[in-house]
Amino acid sequence: MRQLFFDHLLLPAGWAENVRLTVADGRIAAVEAGAARAGAEHVAGIALPGLPNLHCHAFQRGMAGLAERRGPTEDSFWTWREVMYAFLGRLSPDDVEAIAAFAYMQMLESGFTAVAEFHYLHHDVDGRPYGDLGEMAARIAAAAAETRIGLTLLPSFYAAGGFGGAAPTAGQRRFLNDPDRFAKLVQRCRAVAAGLPDAQVGIAPHSLRAVTPESLRAVVAAHPQGPLHIHAAEQLKEVEDCVAALGARPVAWLLANAEVDTRWCVIHATHMTEDETDRLAASGAVAGLCPLTEASLGDGTFAGARYLGAGGRFGVGTDSNIAIDAAGELRQLELSQRLAHRARNVLAAHDSVGRRLVDGALAGGAQALRREIGAIAPGRRADIVALDAAHPDLAGRSRDLWLDAWVFVAGRALVKSVLVGGEAVVAEGRHLRHDMIAARYRRTLTRLLDAAP
Amino acid sequence: MRQLFFDHLLLPAGWAENVRLTVADGRIAAVEAGAARAGAEHVAGIALPGLPNLHCHAFQRGMAGLAERRGPTEDSFWTWREVMYAFLGRLSPDDVEAIAAFAYMQMLESGFTAVAEFHYLHHDVDGRPYGDLGEMAARIAAAAAETRIGLTLLPSFYAAGGFGGAAPTAGQRRFLNDPDRFAKLVQRCRAVAAGLPDAQVGIAPHSLRAVTPESLRAVVAAHPQGPLHIHAAEQLKEVEDCVAALGARPVAWLLANAEVDTRWCVIHATHMTEDETDRLAASGAVAGLCPLTEASLGDGTFAGARYLGAGGRFGVGTDSNIAIDAAGELRQLELSQRLAHRARNVLAAHDSVGRRLVDGALAGGAQALRREIGAIAPGRRADIVALDAAHPDLAGRSRDLWLDAWVFVAGRALVKSVLVGGEAVVAEGRHLRHDMIAARYRRTLTRLLDAAP
Repeated sequence: MRQLFFDHLLLPAGWAENVRLTVADGRIAAVEAGAARAGAEHVAGIALPGLPNLHCHAFQRGMAGLAERRGPTEDSFWTWREVMYAFLGRLSPDDVEAIAAFAYMQMLESGFTAVAEFHYLHHDVDGRPYGDLGEMAARIAAAAAETRIGLTLLPSFYAAGGFGGAAPTAGQRRFLNDPDRFAKLVQRCRAVAAGLPDAQVGIAPHSLRAVTPESLRAVVAAHPQGPLHIHAAEQLKEVEDCVAALGARPVAWLLANAEVDTRWCVIHATHMTEDETDRLAASGAVAGLCPLTEASLGDGTFAGARYLGAGGRFGVGTDSNIAIDAAGELRQLELSQRLAHRARNVLAAHDSVGRRLVDGALAGGAQALRREIGAIAPGRRADIVALDAAHPDLAGRSRDLWLDAWVFVAGRALVKSVLVGGEAVVAEGRHLRHDMIAARYRRTLTRLLDAAP
Repeated sequence: MRQLFFDHLLLPAGWAENVRLTVADGRIAAVEAGAARAGAEHVAGIALPGLPNLHCHAFQRGMAGLAERRGPTEDSFWTWREVMYAFLGRLSPDDVEAIAAFAYMQMLESGFTAVAEFHYLHHDVDGRPYGDLGEMAARIAAAAAETRIGLTLLPSFYAAGGFGGAAPTAGQRRFLNDPDRFAKLVQRCRAVAAGLPDAQVGIAPHSLRAVTPESLRAVVAAHPQGPLHIHAAEQLKEVEDCVAALGARPVAWLLANAEVDTRWCVIHATHMTEDETDRLAASGAVAGLCPLTEASLGDGTFAGARYLGAGGRFGVGTDSNIAIDAAGELRQLELSQRLAHRARNVLAAHDSVGRRLVDGALAGGAQALRREIGAIAPGRRADIVALDAAHPDLAGRSRDLWLDAWVFVAGRALVKSVLVGGEAVVAEGRHLRHDMIAARYRRTLTRLLDAAP
């Protein structure tokens, strides 16, 4: 049982001052605003719930910046994917653990306190399963344990190379399972996650191009509990191929053929008709938006104004991890909308855009991760980010203007300390294990890229 | 005379190792690659010329984040402008100096070593000139002197409230001059800039809405030397108003009615036809792009692929200063293109996008600022940025991949040290006067915003 005291803390009802939290077993037991500080540990700064990162492929952090160069033909998501396949084709379990720990550390330092790992790199480099089918999943869990980030582990079901059950390519052989082996993998994931505080395990059918309708139905039926994430409608070519193969656009097909509800997180959902947008918003599912990756990969712009106007739920993810910055994702989400609409403050229903985006990403992220996070309230985990109240970019600002400054002005430079389960993991902007994790990552990447063909 | 030694330095011909620079009076006297280090000061890291920031309204840094909230009507550039007018209506010369010093310090810490200040806040709060017509210009120069950033001072000529010589509003009274008083102001600017190393003075007719064709011609004729900057085609409403008033779109009108050449920097140029795009590219002028501000203000997306394909010159500016990050501007420039084209690596002619954008912004920025900067070569100023070679985000990377990592992955966190005129102004990522300048800015903003109605 610990007592924490905050000068300023964002509660579900709004900003409060002099807030005392009682924390037991990593969870909030009591919240008292306008309280006395005596006897409590003081957490300086402007505090809010840590943001959930609802979509991450951790290993891709290691290739950040390697594909920002023009190839012989026009570059696209699909040429980027070839670079990604070549990179992951060299990764050992040790490599994945080192890269994931570095990525998770950077997430914590930027204001994310939990991550949903959409985990599709399962097997050895030749495509054969490791002796332990959950070898790679165990490495993801180890990276989460080392950094203390909250984990929702989403083993990905990947069965085909493209629509119509196309044969997989060599670059995809590390991802493949049939429904039976996938069930064993999910079991292993539950076992490796059991050692982490309040970790969740769900499933992630990769996309409508990587599963068949039959195998999707089989996998969903075999795993009726827990979060369910799927990539959909990221690229126009994918939408066209889906219409050709399945007779409907990806989001429309899912809405018609799967019971899309609050269990679901539809990643990207970039290309939707107005009808798809309204129906996804009404479904209760979360749209998993990855604004920096979606811009980086040239995906396109999500129909944010219409979707939020229809009451749609959303959260943000770092996806490819080319840039890891919680505020930066929220900023790009709004900036992409402004460019598309040639207007300002597009995603705010009223007042502060920063507050609107933080509130939305907290609620949608908590739902997508299926963990008791995203709010300062009894029963939720004490996962909290404190911004530096003395930073000049906050001078003269208060309350929601702090969030506008975080999102639009200063970004991760404002993150001063981060608590997970009520305990400090970031102090003065640095993870407590920063030097060790960074050094191991540097060694790993130097070796991997020196050995590259 | 000083000797500097660099492990890696980006020369006009490409990357070089073990480079010895001789610096005299702030300028490069000699460059020797593959040299011995003995007797020279060692500048660790990965070094490149400092980036020129070709468009800045320094005082706007103080309102960063204050307008990211939904108003009673649809928000736009024009509602943002009302917030800006209200903010500047309270600023004293001391305030402007404190804010400008803070903004210039942040520019240096992010990798900019020179700035073109598009300076339109001339008079006292009631619109009357200060006893010294150049009072505010002197404060800009003082901020440049204190931070050591290179300065191109562009007093702005502002004569009307809108197209057709409309009467100015109260919010614009601090900007106004007739051509005669403007000539005196330019004289005063030359005097205040004379104390700065290699400072330049030019002119900045504000925009086609703030001048008449006659007064524009008079001012350009009266000041035939030095850089000439003008805002054009930032907003669709401005384009429509220009067509209604002058019978042509802004860029087309300038190309037809002014001798647009290498002296000119056309700021924004967001909304152009294909013909305007091709002709501006052929004019030799620089397009002054401000990607983060243009996204923040909902301006729209510059026709980058076509313009660069036609050989157009460009540079980047921080404009409203809502976010100050040299790499961040280059990143948003490319990301906005990717979103518009749904493709990747749009602005690269070949190979590295980071290198293409850095090369372009160095050359175009140097031309727009009319200073001997932007390249490591004899006669140029020794304005140099060194990235942290030990940063994990650079592990295993080399040469142009360092620039891709700076632009797309790590941004200003990579900037380790900055030299201006061969002398250190930023060390370990912090300006040598950081604490003093930040404390004064904090006091200034706290007072200004506490006093706000």
